[in-house]
This record gives sequence, C-alpha cells and structure tokens, in this order.
Amino acid sequence: MADLLDTLRHLVGPAQVLTDGDLCAWEQDWRRRVRGKALAVVRPGSTQEVAAVVRACAAAGTSIVPQGGNTGLVQGSTPDGSGTQIVLSLRRMHAVRGIDGDNLTLSAEAGCILQNLQDAAQGAGLLFPLSLAAEGSCTIGGNLGTNAGGTQVLRYGNARDLCLGLEVVTPQGQVWDGLRGLRKDNTGYDLRDLFIGSEGTLGIITAATLRLYPEPVARLTAWAAVPTLEHAQALLGLAHRRLGAGLTGFELMGRFALSLVGKHMPQLRVPFLEDGGVPWCVLLENSDNESEAHARGRFEALLEDACTAACVSDAVVAENLAQARQLWHIRESIPLAQAEEGPNIKHDISVPIARVPAFVAHTDALLQRAIPGVRLVNFGHLGDGNLHYNVQAPAEGDPGTFLREQEARVNHLVYEAVAGFGGSFSAEHGVGALKVDTLERYQSPVALSMMRAIKQALDPQGIMNPGRVLKG
Amino acid sequence: MADLLDTLRHLVGPAQVLTDGDLCAWEQDWRRRVRGKALAVVRPGSTQEVAAVVRACAAAGTSIVPQGGNTGLVQGSTPDGSGTQIVLSLRRMHAVRGIDGDNLTLSAEAGCILQNLQDAAQGAGLLFPLSLAAEGSCTIGGNLGTNAGGTQVLRYGNARDLCLGLEVVTPQGQVWDGLRGLRKDNTGYDLRDLFIGSEGTLGIITAATLRLYPEPVARLTAWAAVPTLEHAQALLGLAHRRLGAGLTGFELMGRFALSLVGKHMPQLRVPFLEDGGVPWCVLLENSDNESEAHARGRFEALLEDACTAACVSDAVVAENLAQARQLWHIRESIPLAQAEEGPNIKHDISVPIARVPAFVAHTDALLQRAIPGVRLVNFGHLGDGNLHYNVQAPAEGDPGTFLREQEARVNHLVYEAVAGFGGSFSAEHGVGALKVDTLERYQSPVALSMMRAIKQALDPQGIMNPGRVLKG
Repeated sequence: MADLLDTLRHLVGPAQVLTDGDLCAWEQDWRRRVRGKALAVVRPGSTQEVAAVVRACAAAGTSIVPQGGNTGLVQGSTPDGSGTQIVLSLRRMHAVRGIDGDNLTLSAEAGCILQNLQDAAQGAGLLFPLSLAAEGSCTIGGNLGTNAGGTQVLRYGNARDLCLGLEVVTPQGQVWDGLRGLRKDNTGYDLRDLFIGSEGTLGIITAATLRLYPEPVARLTAWAAVPTLEHAQALLGLAHRRLGAGLTGFELMGRFALSLVGKHMPQLRVPFLEDGGVPWCVLLENSDNESEAHARGRFEALLEDACTAACVSDAVVAENLAQARQLWHIRESIPLAQAEEGPNIKHDISVPIARVPAFVAHTDALLQRAIPGVRLVNFGHLGDGNLHYNVQAPAEGDPGTFLREQEARVNHLVYEAVAGFGGSFSAEHGVGALKVDTLERYQSPVALSMMRAIKQALDPQGIMNPGRVLKG
Repeated sequence: MADLLDTLRHLVGPAQVLTDGDLCAWEQDWRRRVRGKALAVVRPGSTQEVAAVVRACAAAGTSIVPQGGNTGLVQGSTPDGSGTQIVLSLRRMHAVRGIDGDNLTLSAEAGCILQNLQDAAQGAGLLFPLSLAAEGSCTIGGNLGTNAGGTQVLRYGNARDLCLGLEVVTPQGQVWDGLRGLRKDNTGYDLRDLFIGSEGTLGIITAATLRLYPEPVARLTAWAAVPTLEHAQALLGLAHRRLGAGLTGFELMGRFALSLVGKHMPQLRVPFLEDGGVPWCVLLENSDNESEAHARGRFEALLEDACTAACVSDAVVAENLAQARQLWHIRESIPLAQAEEGPNIKHDISVPIARVPAFVAHTDALLQRAIPGVRLVNFGHLGDGNLHYNVQAPAEGDPGTFLREQEARVNHLVYEAVAGFGGSFSAEHGVGALKVDTLERYQSPVALSMMRAIKQALDPQGIMNPGRVLKG
C-alpha cells in the first residue's frame, strides 16, 4: 500500500494524493447515510494521469471508486469502509475543451460542473438542456456515469441522449478516444452507451462531446390545478399535441408535497394551495423559437381548452421571468421541505405514463392499509412517467423509529407494485451500492447474466468500483 | 447436418425450413454483389420458436445469419458461400403487438415492415418518424439491428433513439424480455443499445417497444438553390434557430447528382436545374403543431431572410402535398438515376457538420487529381453531416473497368480523408461483411479490443452472424 501511494504521488504530485485530515467530502455520500474510508483520494489533472493512476492501481490490485461532484443518491461514488480503495476524483479536470457552434456540439472534461457547462453553452447563444437539482455541484462525468435525468427529459432526453462521444480510461489504463461529434456513426458496437450509466464499473469517463441546441427565444412557465391524475395525464396528452417539441417541462406535484412547501417555506406562496379542493398541481414549460407573444398565445389557448375539457380547474401563466423562476423554485423546494418535516423513505420510480394513475391508486391504498396515517410526498416528472414517490411517517409518532422499522417493508411494497405495473425501481438515480440487492431481485436473470459477462470481459480484475451496480 | 435439419423441421414445421428451389431472395444481397449458399432458410413464427432454433443450432455448432427484409447495403444479412450457415428469417413475425397512445409507444415484432409500422402509428393519429428509402421492404428488426438512419434523424434521431425496449434471443437461446416502454430506467448496463447496431452478431432482436410522437398538423417542403456548401451550412444554422424542432429534414443535393435525375427521369422536372449556375440544392422540411398557415409563414420568413443574407439564391415552398411529394421523389430518385448512368463507388460517410465544406473541397480535389474527369454524385443528409459521397466513372471510358480497377483505390482515398476530418466511414449503413476490414483499419485499437471482448463474452461459441462487424 505504501508503495502504491508513493507511485501515485510520483504520478500526480504529492499535493494531489490526500490521505490525512478530514476526507469527509469524498468519503461520505450526499445524503449522509454512509461514510466510507479511502486509502487515498487521488486527484489527477489530465487524462494521461488518470490512465497512469489506473495502471498503477491495476498493478497493485487496488480498486478504484471514480468520483465527480459526489452528489449521487445511491452511494455509488464513495468508498467502502475497508480503507483499501482509492477515490479517484475527476474534479481537477474541469475544462470546456471547445464549442463548435456549426456542429452544435461542446466538448468538456468529466469534472466540469454541469452549471458551468450550461453557462458555456449559453455564452455561445446555445442551450445544453440537461438540468437537475444538483447542477451547481454535480459534474458532467457523473451525469454521464449515472445517465442523469432531470426536468427537461421530456423534450431532450436523458444524459445518454445528449452525448455524442466519450473519452474513457479502461480498467487496464488504456485511453479510448471516442470523442466524436458525429450524429451518425455505425462502426461497431455502441461502447458509448455501454459506459453511460455504468456508474464507473467498466471504466472512467474523462471527457465527452455533447449535443447543443439553439437557445429558445422564449420560455414560459404555467401552473395548473388538476382534479385527478387521470386529468393530469389528459393534460399531458393535449400539451404534447398542441405544443409538440415546445413542451419542455411537465412536472407533477401532489397536494401534500406542496403543503409541506407551504408549511416550511411560507414565503414561497404556492398557487392554489389555499383552495382545499386541489389535489394535484402541474408545472408546464413551453419553449418557443418564434417569440414570447407567440409562446404566450399558444400556452393560453392550451390552458383554455384544458379548462373547457375540465382537465384543469385553474391555471396561471407566469407574467415574467421572476414569476417563472418562483414557480420552478416551489417545485424544486419539495425535497428540502420534506426533509424539514422529518426523515422519509425515498423512491425514484417510473412506470409507463398510461399506468401512472392506476399505479398511484393501487400503491397509496396498499401503504395506507399497511401503515395507517402514512403520508405520501408524491411529485416528479410525469412527462417521463418518473415519480419521486416518497413515504413520510404518520404525523403522530417518531420519524426516526418509522424509518428504522418500516424502510425495508415500504421499499418492498413499493417495488413489488412498480414491478407489477411494468416499471423501474430506479428511473434516474441509478443503482450504486444502495440498490444492488434490488437489481438482483427485479432485473431479469437473463439480463443480469449478460451484465456480469460484460463486467467480467471488460474488467476481469474487478477493480472498477466493485460492488456497485452488480454484486461484488 | 441432416439431424439438425430434422430438428429444425420439428421445431418450426417442415414448410418453414427451406432447402430446395431458388433461395436467391435470402442468399443474395440487396445490391446483388454477392450470393451465398445457406444450409437452410428457417422461418420461425414466434419468439419461442426463434429461441428453440438458436438452441438447436448452438447444440450443433451451426452458425446463424439473422435476416429481416434483406435490404441492407453492407452484406450483413446473407450467408457466406460455405453452405453451412442457417439464414434465420424473422419475416413471419410481423405483428404490431400494441399501441399505447397515452404512453406514446408501439410494440412490434422484428419482422414488421417499416411502412406497416408507420401506417399503424398513423392509424392511431401518431407518428413513427423513422423513414428511409427501403421502408416498403425493410423490417424494424433490421432497422434496429443496423441502427438505421434516414431522412428524419435531424429531429428524431436514428433507430436507436426511437427504441425504448427490446426482446432479444441470446446466442444461448434464452429470451431476454427487455420490452419496457419507459422513458427513464437506470437499472444496470444499457443492453438495449448494445444490441441495437450489433447487426445480429450478439443475439437476435425479436420485438421492440418504440417511441411515437404526436403527428404534426402540417408538414411543408421547400427547395432552395444555394451557391456554395458554406452557404448551405449557414442556411442549416439559420433554419435550426428559426424553426427549432420544426426542422425535420435538411437534404443536400449536388448539381451533378440532380443532373442525372434530369437526364434519366426527365418527367420529374428538377427545380432550378436549367439555371446552369446552381451548384447545390437543399430540400427542407418544416413540421408544425399549429397550422399549415403558421408553418408556411415561418418557412417563407426563413427563406426570405436566407435570400437577404445571400445564403439562398432562389427557393420555392411546395404549394400542396402533391408538390411536396414530387420534391421528395426527386431527392429519393438520385440512387436510381446514378444506377442508370452506370456502376459507381458508393460511400456513406459522416463528418462534423462544420467540416463538411472543407472535407468536400479537399476530397473532390484529391479524386480529380487521381482520376481526371471523375464525376462526384454527392448528396445526403447535411443536417446530420452524413453524405452519400459517390464516385462515378468519367463520362468517357468503361464504367465496369473503372469499378474493377479503381474501387479499392477510391475507397482508400475517401476513407483516409474521412478519418483526417474526424469522420466515420459508415454513418448509417453499418459494417456487415463488406466493411470488416475498414473497421479494422479505422476503428481505434482500444475500441476494437473492447468490442472483441464483448463478442466473446456474449457469444463464446461465435455462432451469431460470424465474420460480420468483427473479423471471424
């Protein structure tokens, strides 16, 4: 081990091999539920240094945990407690290597913070549409490693769909230069998409070429009260037909989720919350390449028709950017508001959009029977069939006890229901260490055996983020 | 071999195991450049039958060539000449299993003809946007196996981007049911995208769940004359900004390519062809979710501005559907017109869009120097950086001799140029048997070794379409 540390210091410089002091920022996961112990945190400054570090670790048989912003929610980027794993932080590799406006592409290193990347695109009059709550801290390498989702997937797809090329360091410490900015390229197996979403278990993404879009001329936000989930779904269908690709956001929020925002952040003034009869709200976003007036006209016509069809009981279109931001801020404050209310059991599930209402009715009833008084913080990206279906302790009773005693049972009930409705137990967060057992249970055995064969083929030593995604 | 044939007859019925008579339709490739010899053509009628056939072949060590419509252009779906390979035709599995309008998905079996699938979607008021010349004969299984492209990639992506889930029979004859209709699902490695584009070398796609879109209210087509490729590129940028996702087609056609249409199909009346000064034409398509009047207004404003900016020297917007079809028909007649003119050397290349003008100038000059009088039939999907950069014999001299003597040399010149410009030697047609050596030369050695490891991991017996994509 001492030999390896000396080698690493030689390769990246002594200042970039951290072994002493408080390494909590690298060793503890974002939700502060586990803390590991690293042999060292190594911070290479270039692709060649990453490759050299991997070769040294491979020679020593030491396993590597790649890490970007360490904002993942499934314990995929922190070391185990053994003190034998290297955390390889990509954060020093944060350059935007270039923007090609005519090709509508941007190349950036893995450690580039998502928001900086969005800003770089905007500086060139273009849009990089990936957007999610952690965008001020997460890195594009982590976004690709986990195939991040977020709020614009409805129109622009997941991180996978926004990536044209990758540079990857293999488990043998070789560099694969797949940084192509091509929209069509059928020259062999799709290695790019294999690495995307593999959570650092097959290699280390060091850079990417990403798709950009023309920046819309106008982006408007509306907030609509809907009587039932069936009506929310009908509104979604109508919005798809009327706005086409202009529909860039469709977020669902349950009444209880919003009431927590109203309770813990009263300054935010949640629309329609006072009206006791509003069970669901939807935030819609309309992006337009023509003009703000055109966008507003289209949006208002949509909402009027939705009111006439009784899909929507009330609606407001933000008058200006400040109002629009405030509406998004309410949506984004739900996770914080529920944390204020106390510990809760989080899920990140998806089902086919058509089955969302039946899934929610079924699972709500199941949980209410199992745990009388349980409270459901249900919100998410309805346009993608992706719900953060979170379970909060009953109002009376201790939340800590609830979490300890009920988490496994609640997860089991929810995931069984998800499987029954043809859904996924991890829509956008990934598997990490947290959901390895869940993957074993719900992924098909045929798929699992192919995944294991691929892992064995590309990382026969098993040194890349072992125990993540697949059982070690 | 006789034992295997008996087993196969038992599994799928004697009528579905063809060994006698003229098997040319299955044994000869679409371009009629090679003809193989199959041990038998086997036509299973269900996924379970496909699995049983694969198990029988695996037990006998017999290799399998999966085949859909047999319209591929790279000799990927016909058997070699040994008489020992089974052609497994998916054509009997042609059911559309279901359409889910709320989820915007369609499930279909691999043998479903692309056009039938488009029609099924349209019947439900929805759009399946994959569109290519062979759509009346090709199958969705083949489209996915080769990651087909076509004319709508600019807006909707390649076949890969239109697929949410797959059902696959593995080389061991197991069925992987990955037929999910989810827009977000991060539960392990992306097997779906690994099978898409693997050309039947890793397993057999038997069914797919596909993305649908709301059908646009209006679809308009325009034809513009542009002075140079740089101007075509500037027009593309302007169209992206003005039309956003409304821009669903942007096809480039060189003067010589159009002159062949004018010569061999004079009834088609190619716009601006009489005007000797027009070196390039562009076909643009604008899809609109609002109204035909709105679409027309936006389109005309775009073309006026492009004229003012001198990107465009002349333009016409089709007045009605018949005119629009006629313009598309001209574009689609180029391959036939060049075949009428005589044999030619075809390429299907892509480079970053920004580099198209420099690539064409460089490669044109190179070829003119190498073969004085050579004629370039240059057309393709400029919006994707994908050109069918085809090379026709000089007007004087024998085309057959030209093909025999110059093909290898021309390919070498073109592919070296493509590599130099960061491009791909196969943008949308794939590798098949035809470009196996080209892949060896131009794909990175690191990528090739990962591809070989994956092939070995999933198909250790090497029975799935051997010698395609990767060297046998």
